[in-house]
Order: sequence, then C-alpha cells, then structure tokens
Amino acid sequence: MTRKKINKNKNYTPYYIWGLHASISALKNDNRKIKNIFCSQLVFDKYLDNLVNITSPIKIVKSNDLDILLNNKFTHQGIVIETLPLSYSEINESLNDDNTIIALDQVTDPQNVGAIIRTFNFFGGKNLIITKDHSSEINGSLAKSASGALENINIIKVTNLSMALKKLRKKGFIIIGLDENSDVFLHKAKDYRNEKKVLVMGSEGKGLRRLTKENCDLLVSIANNNDSDFNTLNVSVSSALALYEFMGSEINN
Amino acid sequence: MTRKKINKNKNYTPYYIWGLHASISALKNDNRKIKNIFCSQLVFDKYLDNLVNITSPIKIVKSNDLDILLNNKFTHQGIVIETLPLSYSEINESLNDDNTIIALDQVTDPQNVGAIIRTFNFFGGKNLIITKDHSSEINGSLAKSASGALENINIIKVTNLSMALKKLRKKGFIIIGLDENSDVFLHKAKDYRNEKKVLVMGSEGKGLRRLTKENCDLLVSIANNNDSDFNTLNVSVSSALALYEFMGSEINN
Repeated sequence: MTRKKINKNKNYTPYYIWGLHASISALKNDNRKIKNIFCSQLVFDKYLDNLVNITSPIKIVKSNDLDILLNNKFTHQGIVIETLPLSYSEINESLNDDNTIIALDQVTDPQNVGAIIRTFNFFGGKNLIITKDHSSEINGSLAKSASGALENINIIKVTNLSMALKKLRKKGFIIIGLDENSDVFLHKAKDYRNEKKVLVMGSEGKGLRRLTKENCDLLVSIANNNDSDFNTLNVSVSSALALYEFMGSEINN
Repeated sequence: MTRKKINKNKNYTPYYIWGLHASISALKNDNRKIKNIFCSQLVFDKYLDNLVNITSPIKIVKSNDLDILLNNKFTHQGIVIETLPLSYSEINESLNDDNTIIALDQVTDPQNVGAIIRTFNFFGGKNLIITKDHSSEINGSLAKSASGALENINIIKVTNLSMALKKLRKKGFIIIGLDENSDVFLHKAKDYRNEKKVLVMGSEGKGLRRLTKENCDLLVSIANNNDSDFNTLNVSVSSALALYEFMGSEINN
C-alpha cells in the first residue's frame, strides 16, 4: 500500500543521474537527497574522495555494471547516482526580484529542456516555469544535458500557463513569446535587458499554444537567411539566442 | 578482396539515416545515393507516396522492425534509410564567395556537430570544415540532429586545420576563434557581418588547440552572468550565438 502511494507521486520517485558534471553538482547540492552512489574506483579517487559531506552509501563498481544499470543506453562517465527529485516551488513573491524568467509551453524533450536550463544558468537565470502536463520529466537525460545546472535552477510547475503569465504580468513582467510567424525580429526588438520579463518558448513543431500566445505582450521571431525545407532552429538554440539578446550583457553591458 | 577495400574507405561505407526530416531531405537530395528505404505504411502514405524520383527499393515494415534495425537505440519516427555518404570537397576557389565559413577543431560529438550544421544552414551558411581525424563521423545521429540540413551543407575534411586557416587568410578571410579565456566579448566585438570570416569552434572541454588558436586573428568569448562550477555553454549553443552575431542579420539588417 505504502509503496503504491509513493510511486503515484512522481515527486517522491527516485531516479538516476549520470555523467560527471551532472552527478558531482548533485552531490554538492545540499538540497538534494541522494540514496546511492555507484562509481568506478577511478572516479572515486579523482572526484569523490575530496568531496566532503557525502553521507550517502558509495558502491565502487565496474564501468560495465553502470552500463547495465542504465540499460546500455547512456554515457555515464563512470558515475551514476540514485536520487530523489528536488522540490518544486510555486509562483510567489520571491520572483519579484527576477530580471528574466523563462517559461516552457509543453516542451517535451528532456535533452532540450536540459540544454535550456544549462544556458539559462550560464546567463544568470534562476526561475524556470514548466507546465505540469505534457512537459519533459525532470529525469537523468535532462540532468545530463543540463551538465550540472539543474542544481542551480528553481523549477516551478504550473497547471495553467496562461494564468501564470497573467499573474506575472500583474507583478510587472513583460511577457515575450518566441513565435516563428512573428514579423518582429529578435535582433531588431527593443532592448529589454533591464526590464523584468518572461521569455516563453513553445515546443518544436507545435510552437506556442493559442492561449499562451494571447497572453504574450510581444511575439518575436529569429530571422533566417535561407528559406529551404524544414529550416528551423532547435528550441534550445532559439532559447539561447533570445537569452543572449535579453540577458547576455546585463552585467558586462 | 573488393569488399575489404570498400570497407576500408569510410567514404564508401553505407550507413543508416533515421527520422522524418533527416530521411526525407536525404531522399530529396539528388546527390545522395540511397540503397534502401525502410518505412511504415503510415509514413509511406503520408510522405513518400508523393515524392517523385524515388528509384531506390522501398520496404514497408513494422515500427518494431525499425527499432530492431537501430538496436532499440534511436527514435526513427517510422523511417530508416540506408545510404552512401555524400562526397567531401576540398578547399577551393568556390569558397571565395562565402561570407561565413565555420571550422570545427576536433568536435567529436555527432549530436553537437549535427546541431551546428542545422543552425549554420538556418543562417544561410554553405561550407563547414572539419578535421579528418578526431572529428565526429558523419553518421545517422549527426543527420538526425541536423534535421535535414546535412543535405544542404558542404563538408570539407582537412588533414591540417592550421594550414587550412592559413590558406583561407590568404584568400581574405578573417579567422575568428571562440575561446572562453578571451576577454574580448562576442557582443562587444566589432561588427563582422559584412566581412569574409571563418568562425572556429573547439570541442567542449578541450577548446581550441594551441596551433589553431595561433592561427586566429581574433579570439572572442561569451560573457556569462554567473561564475558557479561547470558554468559553460554547449558547443552547439556557443556556435549558434556566434553565428547569430556574425550572420544573423546580413539580409534583414
């Protein structure tokens, strides 16, 4: 009975994180509950032996055992950790100080979401909003792609993205959506670097949903120089370009 | 004897491409020799039945058969094609008209190289230089990540990248390397959009090799707003930011 209850709540289901950057960042994160660490002797000697505060059980295993643990599907670089998910927060007053929030409208690919988290962290972002349904799970593939940055970003899951955007507008945020059909080009848009804003990204293929679009103050697109078939950008790339434009030089001007 | 000879030359070894965009773009490419097409009835009816000029054998199979063909490792979206590699060119006079060339200094991850090709194509790029050794193979993972753009980009394999850069400088190209240690920031660099240039990207982790760096006229870095651990950009993201800055608005100003 208890087990069933736990499994029903994804927030309490343990999962694996693999790869050096993702795993070591997770081990250094005081908010992260680690259940088990599996690593090679080499990784232990080089990286873990010096890490203080590890209280979770460490099992030294062969690289091949890690392959099996991950069903031969992923490149683990000699370390896999079993962990509980980080907790998710709500939209609250703490967001008021943010310069830039990013919101993902049903982006389902964990590698893309991880890549966006990595870039967002690079540019100093803190809070990322995702939809509770039809979003990528926060899993090991996402953590690997985020390359450690998952530990630094606060993820907010919302049931209704449009409502969340409305709430943020009331708090003074400008809502900017990326939409390939907009004829306002990112590189020609007004300079929003010093204004509070939410950057909204849709999934590849589907883009932003109608209601999401309606809740944007501005839609921008990225100009291409080539109108051949299937000529689109990956969502992690278009997010990066928008973040670079909107956050890239806040400090360094 | 003949078979051995063929297998030794990677240029003649057939490989698989999977995924809708990558496969259909390959089928539309007159320069691409296709040996076999494996697809579901659904994909055939929806996409292939209307494509003229298909002379290669088509086998209608179950989705599960495609999984097995790819060892359950990749998402094929109902189509896998077996093809010969495209031919590789040399550095020659045709490059003289290029506005921007991109050169990859031993970037080994096919997904990253594919993502760079996709973005480069989006911004109107034509010629990409890679090193003959220690580079990603031009394989199905790369093609999938390039999402069809592999068919539009001319790949030039060079034995000696430094020599190639010297040659291009003599042809009037400015050589710009991305190097995280440079204190010249990309967003503050001079406007090179209308000048002939080669953008040189190193691999993640190792960056540009010493000799490659010495052959750059200018090194630039991307300013971050966060100096936490492992705070770097994925190479496909940093390439995208540089391409956006250097090519993004040639036409649309």
